[in-house]
Amino acid sequence: MLPIKLPAIIINFKTYAEATGERALMLAQIAEKVHSQTGVEIIVCPQLTDLRLIAESVEIPVFAQHLDPIKPGSHTGHILPEAVKEAGAVGTLINHSERRMLISDVDLAIRRAEEVGLLSLACSNNVNVASAIAQLSPWAIAIEPPELIGTGRAVSKVEPEVVSRSVALIKKINSNVHVLCGAGITCGEDVEAAINLGADGVLLASAVVKARDPEKVLMELAEAVLKATQH
Amino acid sequence: MLPIKLPAIIINFKTYAEATGERALMLAQIAEKVHSQTGVEIIVCPQLTDLRLIAESVEIPVFAQHLDPIKPGSHTGHILPEAVKEAGAVGTLINHSERRMLISDVDLAIRRAEEVGLLSLACSNNVNVASAIAQLSPWAIAIEPPELIGTGRAVSKVEPEVVSRSVALIKKINSNVHVLCGAGITCGEDVEAAINLGADGVLLASAVVKARDPEKVLMELAEAVLKATQH
Amino acid sequence: MLPIKLPAIIINFKTYAEATGERALMLAQIAEKVHSQTGVEIIVCPQLTDLRLIAESVEIPVFAQHLDPIKPGSHTGHILPEAVKEAGAVGTLINHSERRMLISDVDLAIRRAEEVGLLSLACSNNVNVASAIAQLSPWAIAIEPPELIGTGRAVSKVEPEVVSRSVALIKKINSNVHVLCGAGITCGEDVEAAINLGADGVLLASAVVKARDPEKVLMELAEAVLKATQH
Amino acid sequence: MLPIKLPAIIINFKTYAEATGERALMLAQIAEKVHSQTGVEIIVCPQLTDLRLIAESVEIPVFAQHLDPIKPGSHTGHILPEAVKEAGAVGTLINHSERRMLISDVDLAIRRAEEVGLLSLACSNNVNVASAIAQLSPWAIAIEPPELIGTGRAVSKVEPEVVSRSVALIKKINSNVHVLCGAGITCGEDVEAAINLGADGVLLASAVVKARDPEKVLMELAEAVLKATQH
Repeated sequence: MLPIKLPAIIINFKTYAEATGERALMLAQIAEKVHSQTGVEIIVCPQLTDLRLIAESVEIPVFAQHLDPIKPGSHTGHILPEAVKEAGAVGTLINHSERRMLISDVDLAIRRAEEVGLLSLACSNNVNVASAIAQLSPWAIAIEPPELIGTGRAVSKVEPEVVSRSVALIKKINSNVHVLCGAGITCGEDVEAAINLGADGVLLASAVVKARDPEKVLMELAEAVLKATQH
Repeated sequence: MLPIKLPAIIINFKTYAEATGERALMLAQIAEKVHSQTGVEIIVCPQLTDLRLIAESVEIPVFAQHLDPIKPGSHTGHILPEAVKEAGAVGTLINHSERRMLISDVDLAIRRAEEVGLLSLACSNNVNVASAIAQLSPWAIAIEPPELIGTGRAVSKVEPEVVSRSVALIKKINSNVHVLCGAGITCGEDVEAAINLGADGVLLASAVVKARDPEKVLMELAEAVLKATQH
Repeated sequence: MLPIKLPAIIINFKTYAEATGERALMLAQIAEKVHSQTGVEIIVCPQLTDLRLIAESVEIPVFAQHLDPIKPGSHTGHILPEAVKEAGAVGTLINHSERRMLISDVDLAIRRAEEVGLLSLACSNNVNVASAIAQLSPWAIAIEPPELIGTGRAVSKVEPEVVSRSVALIKKINSNVHVLCGAGITCGEDVEAAINLGADGVLLASAVVKARDPEKVLMELAEAVLKATQH
Repeated sequence: MLPIKLPAIIINFKTYAEATGERALMLAQIAEKVHSQTGVEIIVCPQLTDLRLIAESVEIPVFAQHLDPIKPGSHTGHILPEAVKEAGAVGTLINHSERRMLISDVDLAIRRAEEVGLLSLACSNNVNVASAIAQLSPWAIAIEPPELIGTGRAVSKVEPEVVSRSVALIKKINSNVHVLCGAGITCGEDVEAAINLGADGVLLASAVVKARDPEKVLMELAEAVLKATQH
């Protein structure tokens, strides 16, 4: 696996019907196509049941949506980091607002991900929590004010200072940690704003997954990445 | 999918290293081989990341280890019943002692499983909880006193009255619910005892997964099923 | 402590500002006054921090809002049944919709409550869950469809069949279990309807706690109990 | 309430039988006595049901063992910061290893505590988590490697570098945050070691609560504080 090229567009498939099973595969293939046409890094985060199928079928990076900070053993129904890795993922979301974790588990999950060779993208609901997570040295942190998730009101536009303060704080605490912009990202303009505020990419879901024409939306987002990085 | 033939042997792969990824597939193939040699129904419960691969590779029933009582939507990192079904599972464990659920979620998970066409096997830690779950009409209930799990001391031998009382109570409440015997099942003798006490099969994990020769152990268990059902 | 006289009116103080500290004590005293004027049993469920103060100050029964199914030991921040009892409570809510519990913990909490001499009032969100809980033999079950809680639309009026079916089912499973009607109870009419449908009382919160004149509301509810029981 | 004088000895009553109800009050009175004889600050953390009684009966600071990051409203069975404050507490534990919290809730609980005028003492299981919590600006952080809790093997003796590294890191991140030493503190020697490593006090439980003569133990600990601070 090559290293992730930043800025990147990360698509969380959640448990949307439009991104389950065969439709998840099709969506991943669209992402792969836009990537090959633009060169912009696009990462997909399918459900666990679809992870291996997608990882085997496309040549873009695949992340899990969650993992449990466990070791191999008696943990029926939990998500083993080793299993996620072996299924072909290169990274994982951690502490998504829909799957909040104990602070001790965020720490442990980041370390377990690292141990098995997975990149960890930890989500934070505000600047405070982002700075706390920065101390735990994940691969990247996504800034996702929960009040904006799914609203189509992009944090990079509505609360740009949240993004720029988070970027500054996180980089000050740990300059190796990448910062992504989540919550409300809908269009190319939002992506450009995010990158201009210092973000290393965006994390989004419904704007792509639930789009009538996901390829068109993704192409617009990818072009915005190109535009922002040419500055 | 043909209906499940009872009594059955159900193997929970947990998150054991010996039952992850390629090794999970090999274990499922061993189970398939023993099934085809003996005609005894053997069900495997792999991790979610391996579920589709195994369901596509073997012709024995595959169950998930857990599902969340959710509908398609914004549930990052959760387990969607529709996704489990589409990946090829025919059933799922519910409320395993390592993945206990809220009482309202046990109810909802059983109904969601039914909606999408999955059999639900709900685990209970004692006779009381087994009788409560019987009111919720799952496909089957597994009796698993947690103090016996992983001990090699089979509930069917150590606490036979727990099995017989559970079977009697559950059948009285809801005669359509099957009863499985979990916790401590290790050898053919335990399986035979369970079936003779009225159980419709056994749920086990380490005795098979961690065996030096899983095929030999499974063959012994399958032969015990044959022996017990010939009476 | 005398046995609880049914039908009863049970007031859940939740964590309302109007029912915290000194204001909780005043509300309990109003409940005591209405009880002494009407003879109708009124039970109050204050927060834990106010439980002892109220139990020592009024002569009506006091319930906790929750307890953890633990034994004395290392359980920092949890609610010990023995501590609730010693503080003067005679009972406790279990599995309230705002404090859902694992099915195994509902079972254990009911048994722990009984062990230390506390009445357990377990809440259920639907008829299914009510019948499952009936198998666990609590003192009483409250029927509270969550979609009606806090709406002012009483289950006894909007979904009377939920109440009558629950009463019939619960009594059939375990005739010793009392049935209370929760969710949306606002006025005397709702109380009368509940009792006429077979309920042994009502569980309510905001209609009393947030009333401009709680005494007037409680008096109306108590008179409805008298009216319904004279039939 | 006067400000807390440091170094302090903080006693977590947990849900020990020896520290419930009347016995909790007696223990708090012993702590008050040792405080008045030595001048050393001693803080007690009783169960919620005993909090008001103790806060009204003794003139030493009282902390809660946990609070929920909620506002007044519909939160049956939860712990309202305002209620804890009104009952007489001056602070609260947060994220104890027996009551771990979501990272977003640790943040919110610290802010809610501050809003209502409670000191927050957040517990951490390792240096990483301690540094993450330091970003959230609690009043103090307790270092409690869970593998040492209740062992009688003091972190200040067994893993002194954990204490000194934590103190250094926390002070560097936020010099206003106090650092306490928990886990395995048993005797005066442990207390002295902790203070000499830079800790502002100790958090302990069983060594005092379960002592045959709690007064004698507390006196030894208090004298160790005096000795360490005379250096």
